[in-house]
Amino acid sequence: MQLLRLGPAGSERPAVRADDGATYDLTPVTADVTGDFLADDGIARARAALANRELQPIVADGVRVGPPVAGVGKIVCIGLNYRDHAEETGAAVPAEPVVFLKAPDTIVGPDDEVLIPRRSTRTDWEVELGVVIGRTARYLGSAEEALACVAGYTISHDVSEREFQLDRGGQWDKGKNCETFNPLGPYLVPADEVADPQALGLRLRVNGVPRQDSSTKNMIFPVAELVRYLSWFLVLRPGDLVNTGTPAGVALGQPEPKPYLRAGDVVELEIDGLGRQRQTFGQA
Amino acid sequence: MQLLRLGPAGSERPAVRADDGATYDLTPVTADVTGDFLADDGIARARAALANRELQPIVADGVRVGPPVAGVGKIVCIGLNYRDHAEETGAAVPAEPVVFLKAPDTIVGPDDEVLIPRRSTRTDWEVELGVVIGRTARYLGSAEEALACVAGYTISHDVSEREFQLDRGGQWDKGKNCETFNPLGPYLVPADEVADPQALGLRLRVNGVPRQDSSTKNMIFPVAELVRYLSWFLVLRPGDLVNTGTPAGVALGQPEPKPYLRAGDVVELEIDGLGRQRQTFGQA
Repeated sequence: MQLLRLGPAGSERPAVRADDGATYDLTPVTADVTGDFLADDGIARARAALANRELQPIVADGVRVGPPVAGVGKIVCIGLNYRDHAEETGAAVPAEPVVFLKAPDTIVGPDDEVLIPRRSTRTDWEVELGVVIGRTARYLGSAEEALACVAGYTISHDVSEREFQLDRGGQWDKGKNCETFNPLGPYLVPADEVADPQALGLRLRVNGVPRQDSSTKNMIFPVAELVRYLSWFLVLRPGDLVNTGTPAGVALGQPEPKPYLRAGDVVELEIDGLGRQRQTFGQA
Repeated sequence: MQLLRLGPAGSERPAVRADDGATYDLTPVTADVTGDFLADDGIARARAALANRELQPIVADGVRVGPPVAGVGKIVCIGLNYRDHAEETGAAVPAEPVVFLKAPDTIVGPDDEVLIPRRSTRTDWEVELGVVIGRTARYLGSAEEALACVAGYTISHDVSEREFQLDRGGQWDKGKNCETFNPLGPYLVPADEVADPQALGLRLRVNGVPRQDSSTKNMIFPVAELVRYLSWFLVLRPGDLVNTGTPAGVALGQPEPKPYLRAGDVVELEIDGLGRQRQTFGQA
């Protein structure tokens, strides 16, 4: 089962896709897929409504796909969480998770246009496993408690401007929060339908050229440890998103001239079982 | 005129205080003080309703004061924006603004309890001028355009855990986003009632001992330049908050043993014309 949101930006409607590929209107169950919905056993209610044939089929072909969760409260991002990516960027492998934030208004749909900021010369890509929180995580004691706080998984594109991030004085956030810099989706897969979040292949191509190809098994800190760790520094709430870091293969890690993104470039991302994203880059 | 929100946490009601100190129910004008309200000429509408005697007086004494804006989308913070604070922390004076983020769910009322995180030994204070955005700021061309995007000003307490911020690997955000770490308020003063945002005295006391005493005239980058600058790296939207940095006098800048906060400590903040905050610190 997949939860998704279909329709024009800002007025998406919730939907659910069954394992046979048919798509159903989820509005009899909820007005939207939000943190409150996830915290209120929404996934179980959607599953029951689907099983009981209470939902009406809808045509999804040709309809825009929005981000799979509305009203995300915060995006907590993990840096340098794959050893090969830390090495390619010249950074030390971290002893504990590196944490930064993206603002929720950077979220766009999985196939929406992404804008290269004005004056940017080093816009870069980062395919990441996105973890959506379903229960409040605060001072958790174990990996088991942490996984119980995960509602599901999706693809998150942590678009990054490297000059803004690294060479403009201070914290990474300056290069992570540009408009449209967090494509999310296409859908949310419930956590109990992902057998092992640490065994998912993830890949990214730019204009058809393979650039990233790894597996979440190569994370330095796995999902359960990230959620447990974060819960000691901030409160993760239902509807929050954790971007779990990217593997090697970003433009920053390539030999000169580094292939940073330009208007017209097409970036495709995929994670096993979580679908695909495809963005055409434009100019702000 | 001051805009404020009164009542228990999570169910505050909007109010307006006239220049004579009387408080009035603002619900005939708006259900709440939000970014949408500010963007939709809400301040002018509140002012007109007050002038036309359309509002009913209410008793504010003894009622909890909430943060003056609901639904803040993001908190963009400026680091090291007072020369003396950069010097006391051993940091270089920045050549351009240092930017980091706090998540909106750190916001509490101006007099609410602030929780010292578990395992924290270095929780610190930072009085700051808070700038609330009223119009979308995106690739602004001038300081004048920037000031036109400011809805008003308030007091923001950028509570910080220095070990988490500085010594736990990576970005400052790790020590800035702990639960309850952004007291805000007591009220929002409309921008057109603040003659010069760069001429406001700001002070902070801990258990009655003066710790910070400066003026916004000592900012390295003034409000207009901050908003203009930020608009080239992210989109500031109505209801967003900019924390503009803190002057010298934080615990981190004191000689050993540094007077970091402990449960039971009382912190009082004030900014000329923007009122006062008073928090008792507790233990998470």
